[in-house]
Amino acid sequence: MRLVFLGTSGSVPTPKRNLPAIAIRRKRELIFLDCGEGTQRQMMGANLGFPKTIRIFLSHLHPDHVWGIPGLIHTLTMQDYQGSLHLYGPPGVENYLKSTMQAVNFHPTFPIELQTIESEGNILTEEEYSIQCTPANHNIPALAYSLTEHQRPGRFDQKKAKRLGIPEGPIRSKLQQGEPVTLPSGKTVKPSEIIGKPRKGRKITYSGDTSPSQKITGLARGSDLLIHEATFDDSMIERAIEDGHSTPSQAATVAKNAKVERLALTHISARYEDPTPLLEQARRIFKNTFIAEDLMQIELKYRE
Amino acid sequence: MRLVFLGTSGSVPTPKRNLPAIAIRRKRELIFLDCGEGTQRQMMGANLGFPKTIRIFLSHLHPDHVWGIPGLIHTLTMQDYQGSLHLYGPPGVENYLKSTMQAVNFHPTFPIELQTIESEGNILTEEEYSIQCTPANHNIPALAYSLTEHQRPGRFDQKKAKRLGIPEGPIRSKLQQGEPVTLPSGKTVKPSEIIGKPRKGRKITYSGDTSPSQKITGLARGSDLLIHEATFDDSMIERAIEDGHSTPSQAATVAKNAKVERLALTHISARYEDPTPLLEQARRIFKNTFIAEDLMQIELKYRE
Repeated sequence: MRLVFLGTSGSVPTPKRNLPAIAIRRKRELIFLDCGEGTQRQMMGANLGFPKTIRIFLSHLHPDHVWGIPGLIHTLTMQDYQGSLHLYGPPGVENYLKSTMQAVNFHPTFPIELQTIESEGNILTEEEYSIQCTPANHNIPALAYSLTEHQRPGRFDQKKAKRLGIPEGPIRSKLQQGEPVTLPSGKTVKPSEIIGKPRKGRKITYSGDTSPSQKITGLARGSDLLIHEATFDDSMIERAIEDGHSTPSQAATVAKNAKVERLALTHISARYEDPTPLLEQARRIFKNTFIAEDLMQIELKYRE
Repeated sequence: MRLVFLGTSGSVPTPKRNLPAIAIRRKRELIFLDCGEGTQRQMMGANLGFPKTIRIFLSHLHPDHVWGIPGLIHTLTMQDYQGSLHLYGPPGVENYLKSTMQAVNFHPTFPIELQTIESEGNILTEEEYSIQCTPANHNIPALAYSLTEHQRPGRFDQKKAKRLGIPEGPIRSKLQQGEPVTLPSGKTVKPSEIIGKPRKGRKITYSGDTSPSQKITGLARGSDLLIHEATFDDSMIERAIEDGHSTPSQAATVAKNAKVERLALTHISARYEDPTPLLEQARRIFKNTFIAEDLMQIELKYRE
């Protein structure tokens, strides 16, 4: 699972930061968290491709977060895309897509599946992961999302298997599927003797645009990576409250309370050419923080 | 008058070419010819600013030519823009703007003036220039545009003025305004004795997406710069005809017949990483051709 920050600015782009978008590349899937204008071009630097399934999760329908979608749909059509695109967002997302296609009288040649998210909780369960969401605390309806991988089976202890004389082949497969086996020697082996405890899947949480929120703290709990907006620096907390945004200290407090592994600050206002002060403000509260930069790639490791 | 190519690709962007847009910066105005996705970010490299009047002329309403507009409007609003934006395009442009703003329930804080262009000819006359258009030959309603500067007064012959003993000040101003003057010596001087013939203004023509067209040849006549699309190379002429596009030889023939000064080829298909063959094909017919590249700047000189 590879994550690429495609756009890390807030509201308006800068020479260094494009409008908000994050891509997560999994085996046969590409998942977007927001899709600001220019996302398809940013993708070119990240070698992401267009796999069979593309999912776009929109945090909210403010212009800076959504205007990369029509161009992406156009490009997929031009390239005769044979997969399917799934678009998820808060109420209004259906009107967004319809109005956008109607604006240019455009008819994509592949299916677009639309899901309006009306309530919090689990919204998608796939073979290897699920997606959860919760309302964010912005000035229009907005959502925060988590991608949570299912737990994986425990490790198969190769050395012990050899010691116990468990032959390779169907007997090992049975154990891996959780069934006890009887060896040629007559000895019975239970899966728990040879297979470790189930291992935790990885978890990523994205706040979208929001003031600090208990619900997001809850959603983010135990994440390997929390991507939280920090539009304004600590000195602008009043403006942040007024506009439904967060400061670095606030984002770091969410990260600390949610006991996440790492915190990425994004949606950086164009006024900060050098975001170092924002990083310092956050690190005072949560050390394992970094500033998301355009085209920065994160390879998420499993934690044992 | 400074012209900047902001996007020179056709249909889909490439790492080197963004979607179609050309900016022309005049004293207090910024004029766009098309406005593809990502235009506002491309602008950042070109030091164009947001002057009091912004005009966007859309050649047609295909997705690759228009999806930079909503983001531009959003950014202008965020920056508390105090000027006005004028949007011109073929029938459908009103629906485009309305649907787009409706899609995100967005209300810009500055006036947007809309002009649907229903017929060819002169569509705008300003103090120093006018805009003409003619239908292009594409697969949906499309327009080509010319910007033509009004002719300027002839040159004031400083040397001759000195020789004739014409003092600086109001007497010279009178001559420049076309009135004869009587010198202190009693001699009468006519403006034509001291001021040269009116000088031609500069002219730029933009084809938009089109197959070769007699009307565009007519519109482009005598242009200092013709910007003509050349989506496909000469070997793909059948595809060009089918899709309403042009080849380099066709664009060069229009340039030759219209007796323009220079030809820029743009809307280059993403399949041509190296556009040199397209340039060679055009130069066989019209020597003064170049390939437009993103962020290339052209300072248009007056021809005497």
